[in-house]
Amino acid sequence: MSDVKKVVLAYSGGLDTSVIVKWLQETYNCEVVTFTADIGQGEEVEPARTKAQALGVKEIYIEDLREEFVRDYVYPMFRANTIYEGEYLLGTSIARPLIAKRLIEIANETGADAISHGATGKGNDQVRFELGGYALKPGVKVIAPWREWDLTSREKLMAYCEEHKIPVDFSSKKKKSPYSMDANLLHISYEGGILEDPWAEAEDDMWRWSVSPEAAPDQPTYVELTFEKGDIVAIDGEPLKAHEVLEKLNKLGGDNGIGRLDIVENRYVGMKSRGCYETPGGTIMLRAHRAIESLTLDREEAHLKDQLMPKYAEVIYNGYWWSPERRMLQAAIDETQKNVAGVVRMKLYKGNATVVGRKSDESLFDESIATFEDDAGAYNQKDAEGFIKLNALRLRIAAGKGRKQS
Amino acid sequence: MSDVKKVVLAYSGGLDTSVIVKWLQETYNCEVVTFTADIGQGEEVEPARTKAQALGVKEIYIEDLREEFVRDYVYPMFRANTIYEGEYLLGTSIARPLIAKRLIEIANETGADAISHGATGKGNDQVRFELGGYALKPGVKVIAPWREWDLTSREKLMAYCEEHKIPVDFSSKKKKSPYSMDANLLHISYEGGILEDPWAEAEDDMWRWSVSPEAAPDQPTYVELTFEKGDIVAIDGEPLKAHEVLEKLNKLGGDNGIGRLDIVENRYVGMKSRGCYETPGGTIMLRAHRAIESLTLDREEAHLKDQLMPKYAEVIYNGYWWSPERRMLQAAIDETQKNVAGVVRMKLYKGNATVVGRKSDESLFDESIATFEDDAGAYNQKDAEGFIKLNALRLRIAAGKGRKQS
Amino acid sequence: MSDVKKVVLAYSGGLDTSVIVKWLQETYNCEVVTFTADIGQGEEVEPARTKAQALGVKEIYIEDLREEFVRDYVYPMFRANTIYEGEYLLGTSIARPLIAKRLIEIANETGADAISHGATGKGNDQVRFELGGYALKPGVKVIAPWREWDLTSREKLMAYCEEHKIPVDFSSKKKKSPYSMDANLLHISYEGGILEDPWAEAEDDMWRWSVSPEAAPDQPTYVELTFEKGDIVAIDGEPLKAHEVLEKLNKLGGDNGIGRLDIVENRYVGMKSRGCYETPGGTIMLRAHRAIESLTLDREEAHLKDQLMPKYAEVIYNGYWWSPERRMLQAAIDETQKNVAGVVRMKLYKGNATVVGRKSDESLFDESIATFEDDAGAYNQKDAEGFIKLNALRLRIAAGKGRKQS
Amino acid sequence: MSDVKKVVLAYSGGLDTSVIVKWLQETYNCEVVTFTADIGQGEEVEPARTKAQALGVKEIYIEDLREEFVRDYVYPMFRANTIYEGEYLLGTSIARPLIAKRLIEIANETGADAISHGATGKGNDQVRFELGGYALKPGVKVIAPWREWDLTSREKLMAYCEEHKIPVDFSSKKKKSPYSMDANLLHISYEGGILEDPWAEAEDDMWRWSVSPEAAPDQPTYVELTFEKGDIVAIDGEPLKAHEVLEKLNKLGGDNGIGRLDIVENRYVGMKSRGCYETPGGTIMLRAHRAIESLTLDREEAHLKDQLMPKYAEVIYNGYWWSPERRMLQAAIDETQKNVAGVVRMKLYKGNATVVGRKSDESLFDESIATFEDDAGAYNQKDAEGFIKLNALRLRIAAGKGRKQS
Repeated sequence: MSDVKKVVLAYSGGLDTSVIVKWLQETYNCEVVTFTADIGQGEEVEPARTKAQALGVKEIYIEDLREEFVRDYVYPMFRANTIYEGEYLLGTSIARPLIAKRLIEIANETGADAISHGATGKGNDQVRFELGGYALKPGVKVIAPWREWDLTSREKLMAYCEEHKIPVDFSSKKKKSPYSMDANLLHISYEGGILEDPWAEAEDDMWRWSVSPEAAPDQPTYVELTFEKGDIVAIDGEPLKAHEVLEKLNKLGGDNGIGRLDIVENRYVGMKSRGCYETPGGTIMLRAHRAIESLTLDREEAHLKDQLMPKYAEVIYNGYWWSPERRMLQAAIDETQKNVAGVVRMKLYKGNATVVGRKSDESLFDESIATFEDDAGAYNQKDAEGFIKLNALRLRIAAGKGRKQS
Repeated sequence: MSDVKKVVLAYSGGLDTSVIVKWLQETYNCEVVTFTADIGQGEEVEPARTKAQALGVKEIYIEDLREEFVRDYVYPMFRANTIYEGEYLLGTSIARPLIAKRLIEIANETGADAISHGATGKGNDQVRFELGGYALKPGVKVIAPWREWDLTSREKLMAYCEEHKIPVDFSSKKKKSPYSMDANLLHISYEGGILEDPWAEAEDDMWRWSVSPEAAPDQPTYVELTFEKGDIVAIDGEPLKAHEVLEKLNKLGGDNGIGRLDIVENRYVGMKSRGCYETPGGTIMLRAHRAIESLTLDREEAHLKDQLMPKYAEVIYNGYWWSPERRMLQAAIDETQKNVAGVVRMKLYKGNATVVGRKSDESLFDESIATFEDDAGAYNQKDAEGFIKLNALRLRIAAGKGRKQS
Repeated sequence: MSDVKKVVLAYSGGLDTSVIVKWLQETYNCEVVTFTADIGQGEEVEPARTKAQALGVKEIYIEDLREEFVRDYVYPMFRANTIYEGEYLLGTSIARPLIAKRLIEIANETGADAISHGATGKGNDQVRFELGGYALKPGVKVIAPWREWDLTSREKLMAYCEEHKIPVDFSSKKKKSPYSMDANLLHISYEGGILEDPWAEAEDDMWRWSVSPEAAPDQPTYVELTFEKGDIVAIDGEPLKAHEVLEKLNKLGGDNGIGRLDIVENRYVGMKSRGCYETPGGTIMLRAHRAIESLTLDREEAHLKDQLMPKYAEVIYNGYWWSPERRMLQAAIDETQKNVAGVVRMKLYKGNATVVGRKSDESLFDESIATFEDDAGAYNQKDAEGFIKLNALRLRIAAGKGRKQS
Repeated sequence: MSDVKKVVLAYSGGLDTSVIVKWLQETYNCEVVTFTADIGQGEEVEPARTKAQALGVKEIYIEDLREEFVRDYVYPMFRANTIYEGEYLLGTSIARPLIAKRLIEIANETGADAISHGATGKGNDQVRFELGGYALKPGVKVIAPWREWDLTSREKLMAYCEEHKIPVDFSSKKKKSPYSMDANLLHISYEGGILEDPWAEAEDDMWRWSVSPEAAPDQPTYVELTFEKGDIVAIDGEPLKAHEVLEKLNKLGGDNGIGRLDIVENRYVGMKSRGCYETPGGTIMLRAHRAIESLTLDREEAHLKDQLMPKYAEVIYNGYWWSPERRMLQAAIDETQKNVAGVVRMKLYKGNATVVGRKSDESLFDESIATFEDDAGAYNQKDAEGFIKLNALRLRIAAGKGRKQS
């Protein structure tokens, strides 16, 4: 273990990663560089500086990555209407590639030969961090303390803190929660505690980002979202940057009880786990994006997107953002978004994010053809006969040859 | 046109298909057999008998197909979590294959050489009826009056009625609606009228099967759904037949403002159209089915199902229920449902159908492995290192050879 | 029919399209513009000028499109390793989009309001021409004489020629063949005649572009193909343009009995047909392209390409080159080809096109890792245990819960 | 390591697995049960008995699994026209699930708590054995000596043999080959040696099962293959069992220089490797199966099969035969094979396996429709107009709205 000289750690400023700083220094006898990013988790990142300094860290990176996060990761993912296993909006998954990229870039800047993170050996996040790290710097050494050390219980961690004089109070708020949580601009997640019983209903005071539908206002809120090239660029006519859009939608959604989710999901490491998620803004975005696509996408590209989406979701969930297959899928997805522009009107009300109108200069909806009224010859109904006859031909031949239909 | 001797007509008893009876008799100089089915559209079917008799029809089929409809069509489709274009639950599409099958069976029983229907030349339903007809009886003659006649406006229809003494009052209720509607146990649909402008919000008095979320009760309703082989077999512990399940869920959903949908969709004939749908029971079923699958399906079969689903939805939407590709997909889907059993607990509240618990004797959720607490060696965290290392190998080799990652 | 003023005809100079010129002039009382292209069919195109002039045509387009054809259509298609139904290299399909594009461009240049072609109403080519036409000029009028006229037999055609003084001897060569043939730089096809019986073996004198394997040289020919970005740019070190590559490979393949194919295929219009094809150069190209990809593509992008390929082939076969879904798939495919570069060495011998070596500066083959000899730690075999353990986890949990494995 | 009491070893009788017997006995101080199967590798299996006895083994299983292997593994795989990465017929992959199954069954019979195999830590076979083992007996202990021991060179192995008095001469034949080989009824494979350079052409004396095309007879051999439900059941009219079919086709193919393959492939463990394969019978079978399908499969099920095939191949290649996703895919595939019956006539000549005729009572080829001659109204060419018009509609609308086509 003596061959590691300097390691860049994804440092939250919390208890666990503070222990990791000390443990890395002791175990690997190496220098630790901390990296703390604001990706919208809703906690101050600047306090991490003092804490890192107290632990003897000399190179401290603290960055606001909110805009980059939404613009370059969340937005491209939403262009595909990405959902994992029919329900999950990938809030945790999509934050990891950016962290991995910055860890490697900082390693290159500081001459570090290793990176480290605070993810456990049971979850998906270790995979996402490390696949990203290896893809961007193939010779990097990865240190995953949770897979190595013997601090396997809260008691042992506390004993370690006492022994090494790591102040434990600074994470008092988080400590009290019975849940394992993770947050960024796209979502906040909850695991563990009573959620480990999939039959148990989540307690209402668990949720932090949204009111319950019951507690939401009795009057609906209407909002208009403007899209360009598949991305939201304005809300109610006001131009906003990517992260500002998501911040505003989180507020609107959270206030209206939108975006709570309670699922059992399949982890890449092979087990099922139960998680609860709040994704207020993302839930609105997904619905709105489908609506603007419904006007502006060709049918066949829309269907092909839908067929590719589960694979794309799996690629991101499993941690392969930095992979050729993700780039390949992204190229296909982005090709379709050139004309995905226009305005979607939504009604937000007690948990419901409902599309009530959509319009676009790029609309492929042709009222003169679709109308139930006289279409003045825009569509020749007699064409349908030949269309059906030839589409039926293979079925008729088969039936004529005696093939059974059941 | 003289070569048609007898035609079986899908007869609703309404104005349009009554005109068709007369028009067929006159135009083709043939006998007309009427077929009227109760598939849960919520209207009496027996009155169709008197109306048909008044039109001189001698062979009149009136049937209650509700159980068969849900058991053999709706349920198999829901096993795939089928959604068309991300939103639509295929309520109209799934009713057509059964109608087509009965039309052909009745044609065979009565010695008819043709079938007929009241669908227009612009929509999907003509395709669904006719593909089914041709697949089941390849030599059948199909008569689609809307593609043939010149009764292209309401005025001309009315003039035809007057001329032929067809009483027009019997469909007074329907006539008043500005919308083109279609209903069965799975849903009711609305098209036309102000909906032809995709920016216009549907009027609240359009909706018939559900109250608005605003008007729904202020207290949530909890319900427990029991699954066997992927199908719901009991509600709150009470065993029910397939159609009884859907009837009850429609009531529960409708009362709680659940299942309204407003979309622009891509028709098989090549145009976009705007439709509104109420699918109260189906909306609950879909969520519940995903939840019970989340406990009982293997990850890879679940993901494969998700990848096949858009194709399966397209097959049904386009009218290819009676096709080898549908049977092929169904075989794959049904293979996965053997162990999809257990109970899902849902909360229904003002438009929200939320899963709050799920349990199963067939559960693949392993709490002893998934736990955040001490797992007593059930899972070896060190395994993750090798897992990640080998999954990263191809990425590392590529990066080592200088391949760019963006 | 009086509303057509000028029509651009895809004119081969042969008997059938010469009749069409006259028939269009007479039936539509319109001006005819002829368009004749050299796409490598192996016949002089210049004689078409005199023939067209003799028919009274004033605007005559004769063009050499060989380079554009191979560079912009054949090459992009081969990047996907495209095969239709496991066998067919799409030689006819890929030539149609270019013809359609030029027909429309010429219509725009000459102010024509219609296009016309000599394809029958049973085949795929009518679809390909017309979908292309409509996609590029939505208001264009398409005239497909074979679907309209009553010249449904050779005798009637001949009578028409005599009546209208169209010289019939100029297509004497083609007339003698019992087969319907189509040729371009990628292939020559044969249909009809005894081939209509799928059990009948094609006669050896039918084939025109290749010797039989039996008649091929007893000594193998070796050839080295250089790729850049997925396309062949040199043969045996000599840089060549796209169409020169294909011409040379056709010669090499044909001389060595390579590229004959005899299949039953499914047409888009719903019937099965039997066709024989000679694709000497394409057969070599496909094998070579797979070989260079085997060195230079990442595994997951290669597998994803393979999964998308049948859809891409179907899109092209069915005539949707000029469609958003084709562009979407092309974007994905082309994204993967950036590093597909290197040299493939092939052995051509009596029908066999065998890859015997491949090398590339972009190779992802890592001998130091793959070796059966001592790898000096490049690969840690112990990693495989964790890799297998976690990949097996879901299977073990299922088996532990009593799930059956058969 | 003391907790293993009895281990079942996949024992070839060769040097390596003989060393493993001894090493297991010593290292784990456990009883070893040997299992040797004839799956058509072309070597006597009975001699393994004496060798095992000499090593002190008491429970010795020697079995002829040839029929089961072809009938229950090879045949189902060929129903899907399975090819990995466009070239490889999965000869090694498909033999592993059966071995894994018998290892586990024997473990259950003999009360063993572990299984072991002689595959290295770099290859796919370890994965295939172990995934199968875990899927069938989740608590089984797997011992992979090559990942554990330090006998990492031929010299160390020899020293170990000498020390433990293991006779080394018994594998003299195999030892002389510079290649790592594996054989069963479907194929023989070669890796290592000069093949580790992908540019180096395989030496002609490497190949064991086939003559070179050059050395094959100058006269073609014709053969007729009879299919039922997608499987070959007779050759030239003579009914044969599954393994007899493959034996006979291997002879016919090998004699005619058919089935040699030289590729670079992507292993599941993340590296590329170069392998050469001889699959004489399989190469014929694949072509013939496609040909009988071309007559008897519906177009859409055929295309869907082609889209699923790469995934199915990946599942088998990666070792997931005993998985829900394989069973799901198999259900879809087998559903399509009910009517895949008839006779294919092939010409075998100097490396070429060419289909020259196919016939079937289940044929969907309709000569009366497909004909270039007068079809007596079987097909109405005018139907094509409506078919094309509606298929073009979405493209025309888009073009009419100004969408670009490139």
